[in-house]
Amino acid sequence: MPILEILDYAGVAVFAATGALSASRKQLDIIGYLFLASVTGIGGGTLRDVILGATPVFWVTNPIYLVVCAAVSFLVFFSAHLMESRYRYLLWLDAIGLSSYSVMGAAKGLAATGSPIVALVTGMLTATFGGILRDLLAGEPSVLRRPEIYVTAALAGAAVFTAADWLGAPLVVASTLGVATAFAVRGGALIYGWTLPTGDPRPGRNPDDVM
Amino acid sequence: MPILEILDYAGVAVFAATGALSASRKQLDIIGYLFLASVTGIGGGTLRDVILGATPVFWVTNPIYLVVCAAVSFLVFFSAHLMESRYRYLLWLDAIGLSSYSVMGAAKGLAATGSPIVALVTGMLTATFGGILRDLLAGEPSVLRRPEIYVTAALAGAAVFTAADWLGAPLVVASTLGVATAFAVRGGALIYGWTLPTGDPRPGRNPDDVM
Amino acid sequence: MPILEILDYAGVAVFAATGALSASRKQLDIIGYLFLASVTGIGGGTLRDVILGATPVFWVTNPIYLVVCAAVSFLVFFSAHLMESRYRYLLWLDAIGLSSYSVMGAAKGLAATGSPIVALVTGMLTATFGGILRDLLAGEPSVLRRPEIYVTAALAGAAVFTAADWLGAPLVVASTLGVATAFAVRGGALIYGWTLPTGDPRPGRNPDDVM
Repeated sequence: MPILEILDYAGVAVFAATGALSASRKQLDIIGYLFLASVTGIGGGTLRDVILGATPVFWVTNPIYLVVCAAVSFLVFFSAHLMESRYRYLLWLDAIGLSSYSVMGAAKGLAATGSPIVALVTGMLTATFGGILRDLLAGEPSVLRRPEIYVTAALAGAAVFTAADWLGAPLVVASTLGVATAFAVRGGALIYGWTLPTGDPRPGRNPDDVM
Repeated sequence: MPILEILDYAGVAVFAATGALSASRKQLDIIGYLFLASVTGIGGGTLRDVILGATPVFWVTNPIYLVVCAAVSFLVFFSAHLMESRYRYLLWLDAIGLSSYSVMGAAKGLAATGSPIVALVTGMLTATFGGILRDLLAGEPSVLRRPEIYVTAALAGAAVFTAADWLGAPLVVASTLGVATAFAVRGGALIYGWTLPTGDPRPGRNPDDVM
Repeated sequence: MPILEILDYAGVAVFAATGALSASRKQLDIIGYLFLASVTGIGGGTLRDVILGATPVFWVTNPIYLVVCAAVSFLVFFSAHLMESRYRYLLWLDAIGLSSYSVMGAAKGLAATGSPIVALVTGMLTATFGGILRDLLAGEPSVLRRPEIYVTAALAGAAVFTAADWLGAPLVVASTLGVATAFAVRGGALIYGWTLPTGDPRPGRNPDDVM
């Protein structure tokens, strides 16, 4: 199986697992697991395909991705009670999904346009969109707004992949480097609480006070 | 008028009415009614068409759907004060919209791909997306997270329609069975508070406590 | 440079600036600025292109728009501390973006379909979508739900542009009239607190009380 296909299935499966864990935290029923797992698992890739005009989107032309989401939902439904901290699993699986999709998104953007800038943006957007949707639909505080770096990891993975590809590295090497970079950055942020400096240290005032 | 077209207009009209009722609950002006009614009425079908690559989407090629949304907005704007409980109307109209769109979404997905799995997912997603958008934009608690079953009803409607169609039932029979199933499931949930068992009984801890 | 292209760049740049200001209010790092500026800057036009089937979307075929978003992000990152009230800047830049995009969205909708009703809706949706995304992702109260008129301004701009074009006005005249109308309406609303009458004066009850 080619490397990009492996990354795609891995991204869908682990994002689906984070959606199912979120459903578990919210004490939903099995259909709630299926819904959140599907939306999180296929959301990022769907946005990528729609933006690039690659429609019907990937899971319509190849429904095996949906079977993966359903299988993951049942697995988590019957095993979540064994986990001590579901949120910690969610964050680490999200890190794997983010890493896979940052390279997948960049690779598809690069293949469609040849533009490295577009590759960075499709990598960044599609790696983060599944998690954004999950948190929005589950009513969790968005992973985007946690203090540790998040989007940066996706951007780093997409950048390393795109640069390695541009330098002539084989696809499997460029992909591995990209995924490893994104995961190292996000994993380091989760373990050590890495942050980047903020722009303006003043917090925003309440909109009503400003007017 | 063929059955699927009737379901489409019905879905748009009743979802538009729920958007207008939501605008009324938030005390918006007529343009707020038009906006929320349009987004709710055409949101689910727009997502369906975009995913399937059926663009320009349905209301661009046939703007009569927009006229329906506008007419419903004015109707609700001038009659909402007559209703005792706008939220109860909203929930029941939402149930009709969910039922219509679960079959419409499944039918379009099936026609485009021939895959029953894709039909289930396009049915489920397009039936629930209008209501998700409405609650998100209006700042209402999402109907997705109410305790009674919701997504399950959409899935049941899509499944019954797809199965009946696969068994060779005429379109009008398969559609009627699908709509009736979805409406019975959702209606029963609204009246009797039907729920499915949840996976893991532990509520999610606060993300900040976990890390 | 033709008028519509100028409006497009202007819309992207000022919406990107509002995204960056929102990132500043939330004390994000530079990548957070880039992310919010990109999503806000290109969100409305992306929705417009996807709905019309004009894919790959505009910034994929012409990545200079992404460079604009990045440049604006750095500019705001290093200058936001000089502003007394970032939220006031955000609202006024948002008004310029809304005005530009109400005409751009209407013009693209009209060119794609010839239908004035579609033009009104693509104008309204694309002018407001960037700001909706920004507030949703940044966790700000939605600009949609502020009391002063907002969507109305977008609708007015799209209507005046469409009417002028229909009456045979040259593109540059119709565009200027549309942008000026939208900006006058939204600017007046910001300064004088203009509102339209609401439909039903009763606030919505808590959903749990209704059932």
